[in-house]
Amino acid sequence: MVAHLASLPSAEVGVIFATIRSDSAALNELVAKYPGRISIIKLDATDKSSIEKAAAEVEHQLNGKGLDVLINNAGKMGFSPAGIKTMNDLEDHFITNVVSVQLVTQAFISLLEKGKGKKIANISSTFGTIGKAQQFIASPAPAYKISKAALNALTVQWALQYEKAGFVIFPISPGWLKTDLGGGDIADLPVEVGAKATLDKILGAGKEQNGKFLNIHVKGWENNAGVNSYDGLGFPW
Amino acid sequence: MVAHLASLPSAEVGVIFATIRSDSAALNELVAKYPGRISIIKLDATDKSSIEKAAAEVEHQLNGKGLDVLINNAGKMGFSPAGIKTMNDLEDHFITNVVSVQLVTQAFISLLEKGKGKKIANISSTFGTIGKAQQFIASPAPAYKISKAALNALTVQWALQYEKAGFVIFPISPGWLKTDLGGGDIADLPVEVGAKATLDKILGAGKEQNGKFLNIHVKGWENNAGVNSYDGLGFPW
Repeated sequence: MVAHLASLPSAEVGVIFATIRSDSAALNELVAKYPGRISIIKLDATDKSSIEKAAAEVEHQLNGKGLDVLINNAGKMGFSPAGIKTMNDLEDHFITNVVSVQLVTQAFISLLEKGKGKKIANISSTFGTIGKAQQFIASPAPAYKISKAALNALTVQWALQYEKAGFVIFPISPGWLKTDLGGGDIADLPVEVGAKATLDKILGAGKEQNGKFLNIHVKGWENNAGVNSYDGLGFPW
Repeated sequence: MVAHLASLPSAEVGVIFATIRSDSAALNELVAKYPGRISIIKLDATDKSSIEKAAAEVEHQLNGKGLDVLINNAGKMGFSPAGIKTMNDLEDHFITNVVSVQLVTQAFISLLEKGKGKKIANISSTFGTIGKAQQFIASPAPAYKISKAALNALTVQWALQYEKAGFVIFPISPGWLKTDLGGGDIADLPVEVGAKATLDKILGAGKEQNGKFLNIHVKGWENNAGVNSYDGLGFPW
């Protein structure tokens, strides 16, 4: 997502604050490739003091200006291959995938209130769709699924409360991507395709998307006969 | 619920294991009123070792027989009157309202597999309905709402996985009751009415209710013009 944002004109996309837990060679390369476009900020989304330090640093760098868009992307996916009976990582998933988003959003909301974009996108997953759980039952990641349903519920609470202030806040599924997290070669889409489609949706979202669960749009994937379609519409809860 | 179950014929309802954290005068009165019907078991649903001790004690008392029905009722509701921005009790709600259910169900599932009822009812709330969040936005209990959505997602994972083994597992909203938790005098229904209606639904549930979000049925409340209707049907996620 950082690579795609940095490739857009600077008149369209200002400074990109890219948060990381530890040094990333790939991110350092992007910083070198797009001078002045990307600011790397240390942030561990499970550590409240780290988050508050990061927010203070972003505020300092913005020098009185606001923040336009917040994308909460940090997440983990653990497995319980022997079934729900053996799931012992639920609390851990709540902390990393849900409470983290609350802490980060709390820390950045005052900067977002000063911004022009007033947009918060929480990276969710169709695995979090309770009504479609049957479709994904073969994937042994129950804690991840439950945490993403909780993330959706959290996001809707923010969306409803900040709607009047002009915010657009939503969960979005980036598609099943060939990432390290849970995709690999069998996943549907290259990371670049999913990242671009996710950003297109985030940057294009208007007030009618507030509190909705968004799907990306990828040409040719609108009516996929398999499990996942990327039609740009939404998902049920 | 214990009072209502104990009032039913013993041929219909066997030993009732009533779990509590600390001594309860009201429960002791019920034990005296219905001799031999109720077994009080110490259990703190947030404490894994306490849960495992309780499961061992129930197993001992069942003396080789199975457990028919598990009702996960423990829960808490905290408030964030200054809005979602100030919500700092989300992890706490996940632990008490969701992880507890996972721990208790894990500990009792082998006894339930030996039982004839094969039923697990998780006490949820319409506050956990993500799609109806707008309807309840005035109630400043976001952590409770988000935790109940997560509980619903957890319950569906169990339901889908244990369906083939003949289990019926579902979340159920007991209605808005005049309890200490969040009802008081302004709530819709007396505790006794909600408890009876909840048990009617739990005991009557069949495989078509597996993985569904159930509503109680209370005569005269089927088409309530206010917020809550108790029509015995279900809720969306």
